[in-house]
Amino acid sequence: MHAYRSHTCAALNKDHAGEAVRLSGWVHRVRDHGGVLFLDLRDHYGMTQIICDGDSPAFAALEKVRAEWVVRIDGTVKLRDASLVNAKIPTGEIEVYAREIEVLGPSEELPLPVFGDQEYPEETRLTYRFLDLRREGLHRKMMLRSNVVRSIRNRMWDSGFTEFQTPIITASSPEGARDFLVPSRLHPGKFYALPQAPQQFKQLIMVAGFDRYFQIAPCFRDEDPRADRSPTDFYQLDVEMSFVTQEDVFAAVQPVIQGLFEEFAPDKTVHADWPLIPYKDALLKYGSDKPDLRNPIEMQVVSEHFAGSGFAIFARLLEQEGTEVRAIPAPGGGSRKFCDRMNAFAQQQGLPGMGYIFWRKAEDGSMEAAGPLAKNIGPERTEAIRVQLGLGEGDAAFFLGGKPETFEAVAGRARNEIGRELGLVEEGCFRFAWIVDFPMFEKTDDGKIDFSHNPFSMPQGGLAALQGDPLQVLAYQYDLACNGYELISGGIRNHTPEIMFKAFEIAGYPASEVEKRFGGMVKAFKYGAPPHGGCAAGIDRMVMLLADESNIREVIMFPMNQRAEDLMMGAPSEPMNEQLRELRLRVIPKD
Amino acid sequence: MHAYRSHTCAALNKDHAGEAVRLSGWVHRVRDHGGVLFLDLRDHYGMTQIICDGDSPAFAALEKVRAEWVVRIDGTVKLRDASLVNAKIPTGEIEVYAREIEVLGPSEELPLPVFGDQEYPEETRLTYRFLDLRREGLHRKMMLRSNVVRSIRNRMWDSGFTEFQTPIITASSPEGARDFLVPSRLHPGKFYALPQAPQQFKQLIMVAGFDRYFQIAPCFRDEDPRADRSPTDFYQLDVEMSFVTQEDVFAAVQPVIQGLFEEFAPDKTVHADWPLIPYKDALLKYGSDKPDLRNPIEMQVVSEHFAGSGFAIFARLLEQEGTEVRAIPAPGGGSRKFCDRMNAFAQQQGLPGMGYIFWRKAEDGSMEAAGPLAKNIGPERTEAIRVQLGLGEGDAAFFLGGKPETFEAVAGRARNEIGRELGLVEEGCFRFAWIVDFPMFEKTDDGKIDFSHNPFSMPQGGLAALQGDPLQVLAYQYDLACNGYELISGGIRNHTPEIMFKAFEIAGYPASEVEKRFGGMVKAFKYGAPPHGGCAAGIDRMVMLLADESNIREVIMFPMNQRAEDLMMGAPSEPMNEQLRELRLRVIPKD
Repeated sequence: MHAYRSHTCAALNKDHAGEAVRLSGWVHRVRDHGGVLFLDLRDHYGMTQIICDGDSPAFAALEKVRAEWVVRIDGTVKLRDASLVNAKIPTGEIEVYAREIEVLGPSEELPLPVFGDQEYPEETRLTYRFLDLRREGLHRKMMLRSNVVRSIRNRMWDSGFTEFQTPIITASSPEGARDFLVPSRLHPGKFYALPQAPQQFKQLIMVAGFDRYFQIAPCFRDEDPRADRSPTDFYQLDVEMSFVTQEDVFAAVQPVIQGLFEEFAPDKTVHADWPLIPYKDALLKYGSDKPDLRNPIEMQVVSEHFAGSGFAIFARLLEQEGTEVRAIPAPGGGSRKFCDRMNAFAQQQGLPGMGYIFWRKAEDGSMEAAGPLAKNIGPERTEAIRVQLGLGEGDAAFFLGGKPETFEAVAGRARNEIGRELGLVEEGCFRFAWIVDFPMFEKTDDGKIDFSHNPFSMPQGGLAALQGDPLQVLAYQYDLACNGYELISGGIRNHTPEIMFKAFEIAGYPASEVEKRFGGMVKAFKYGAPPHGGCAAGIDRMVMLLADESNIREVIMFPMNQRAEDLMMGAPSEPMNEQLRELRLRVIPKD
Repeated sequence: MHAYRSHTCAALNKDHAGEAVRLSGWVHRVRDHGGVLFLDLRDHYGMTQIICDGDSPAFAALEKVRAEWVVRIDGTVKLRDASLVNAKIPTGEIEVYAREIEVLGPSEELPLPVFGDQEYPEETRLTYRFLDLRREGLHRKMMLRSNVVRSIRNRMWDSGFTEFQTPIITASSPEGARDFLVPSRLHPGKFYALPQAPQQFKQLIMVAGFDRYFQIAPCFRDEDPRADRSPTDFYQLDVEMSFVTQEDVFAAVQPVIQGLFEEFAPDKTVHADWPLIPYKDALLKYGSDKPDLRNPIEMQVVSEHFAGSGFAIFARLLEQEGTEVRAIPAPGGGSRKFCDRMNAFAQQQGLPGMGYIFWRKAEDGSMEAAGPLAKNIGPERTEAIRVQLGLGEGDAAFFLGGKPETFEAVAGRARNEIGRELGLVEEGCFRFAWIVDFPMFEKTDDGKIDFSHNPFSMPQGGLAALQGDPLQVLAYQYDLACNGYELISGGIRNHTPEIMFKAFEIAGYPASEVEKRFGGMVKAFKYGAPPHGGCAAGIDRMVMLLADESNIREVIMFPMNQRAEDLMMGAPSEPMNEQLRELRLRVIPKD
């Protein structure tokens, strides 16, 4: 017989009754029923009940084992009494009568129990991650992640993509975050960088003549702590294609993602209609460039009804250039209590408040508009608003005014809140949308022009477009939004050095700076570059959505804590003096 | 029609004759046959011949294109004249008559031609890697690598393994090489390390209750330059299994590797007999722990024939303890000329020389032994040697004496040389062998005891074995040798803290040092660790073998040069002062 097991802990059933078997695993739970020991033996595959009584030579030894000891059990498969059958597990019809036991790995007192659902502080869980991972939920999520990654790979291969590995110890590849640096020992004083993304490499792969690339790629960003992201690294499905337009990328990606979600969320609806929403419309209608389309609320511009109206705040505001009043319709929100609560929400979010109108049944049975705003602008304008928004009795509308960029984000959050409170959000589904036509440039807080997203995207209209107002230039740049999250970001790339230099010039980077920062790629574009484009999808984010999980550390095997520390392994740590000497580095004391 | 192509450059054949098509790709070659232009258009998939004459509106533009420009061609598929059909390529029966051309990406003068096989200095090739990769050979090798990795993954999944990703920014995980360090910005003065291998993590995954893990894992080692390895990082197929013996690991790995080699080397024999050879025997018989078994030569101990013999050098030498005389049989090497050449080889390798005997036809037609050694030891001993080695007329034998460790390596190289020179080495095949029973410890040059290989391997005989002579302790540690290369290394792990501390103590590491360096793993072993073991296989090495390539840079997409520089991207480079300031680091000037 095998040294450790004849079967796994999920393999035995009533067909094995009477067989002599050998099992190994962790002691999940021990129960002593007055001279009869019941022991749940657990391995990766499942659980088997072990039983032992005083007649067994193993009894004395078995009495001593505790939870999470690793043991080998030799015994005989027996049918359980009909009343003791557990239909929930594959081994539920049998138990193994133990005749021999060997302790393979004893355990000290556990800092964290594996059995049961008790909550434990995250610091404890991360320090003893190897115990936490034994718990059913985390174990299942790790298997889910692994299966998701496998499925993505197979789907990409089946779609004609080839996976290539790009360098990890490399040159800085700025993507807007900080680089992790790696000092070079052979070239003291010089540093490598870990890639923030394989952006330049995947573009070089296209210039090198490969056609459809993908990679499950580790990306490294020295980020400040934030709850929903890893402070050091993450994985992305990195994709690039040659000789493609934006539509080709969409056509390649949708079946992969759609199929993936259908595979791993069989109990949810994965909507197949993926609308294309221009960035500008997304902000207007949803107050977000990653709208949650499960929420049916769409905001609208209602400026005309307030211009020159009796509501002086909006009327005066609309006299300034670039201002608008927008409405958030709230079907079913037609009560003062609800409207006041949403108004308070807007105030919590830093706005002066949200004006509102709601429509209720008047005492005479007709419908009447209520709320201070309705009074100020009068019945005609109020009715015009109601008609535009398609609302009726029992509904409400909220209003925000000013320059859109000052209130758009709050409007988006209010839309979420209203949808949630009113139960309008479709449940048990995934709704996707491509957000397209991102602006190429934006004005920074100090009034300069900078790239608003990816500097490597092709401006729509090419070089000619860059001669006009930069803030009007749209890019072939797109995101995939899903249920309020950004899942994918990508673009058709700027493969023409001339257009690239011009775009960077507008953003304030002289050619010399471009050559210095992106020299490898820019040089490559001078030797026959194909039109190309692609995207990158967040693996961690997708697994989080599929696992219905909001904490990224629940879908990573060995995560850092939020202070970028590995509590289990003790990283980061003080280097040895010799290591620093070899690197010709000195740590500057704190003061 | 699509903006760039209706077909790829490999898609058209005679069934498309008469169709209007659109192709995009690189101009591989242009030939001007007096008013008729022939242009080979190349993409990832293949090549299509474009033809154009003065009647076409595209002629003037087409005359201007040069090699490696990226162009779009619109035209009509035409059958080639029967005499011009090229049966070697799928598009060889047709050509496309060009009516319109668009230049998508022009090229400057090429520093490195893509067409043709001309050799170029490696520095040029690495600087312009994106051009070199367009060449057929490198392109094919990249595709091979990618397909090999894919096949490995599928084979591992099909064998019940699950892939998990382990951290890249982590704590030091010493494997005998230098770590790459990553300074922490959030914890200035502290450093992360890039993993030399996921050794500790994969063992922790076993302790966490997963059963069969694998990963195509990047490994980082700050190595001094050597021709056949990357100076910064490499990929390994990392494998770990719980509740297994050494034989289980072999049984899991062999079908994967065997199948892989059969798949990607269909023109070679992949021998299915994988013998288990104890380390000691490998050194004795082959002079190497990674023997090339395509070479049938096996060395033997022949001390008894020289002890007390007339060959004083060996006779005296054998009086010292620990010495041996070993013979390298050389079937077919029976000429003085050959023997002298091999003797010279040994001298080049730093030995005083190799004594030899060879057997030839005497003038009377009988067989006689020749060479100075034969004379010195006399006919009886000479004949006994011949019989032991199974040699005959026309054969030779070479002799090396002393403490085995002083000549074993040279003996191994001489064995290779002899086998090669005499044409004994089987061609067109892969021969594998598991080398087992590695010693746990070895004596270092300064007389101390250290681990001879992996400190995490379980000593055979467990704790009891560690009470005796450490140099006699064998480990459950194994390598897979293939055609003279080490492909895989692995072991059954030491999962018992007590045995681990004892083993490290023998190697001179106090418990505190073990806790400090491997704290995460050692702590985990205290909470119910399963017996486990595994191995790691070099991906780059396997691809090199399958591609019949000895330069590792030929199987990596974007390799470093041997001085650990990325010439294309310009890494490593000087950091910005601000970056160093954030990390609280200062570079110490050279003098």
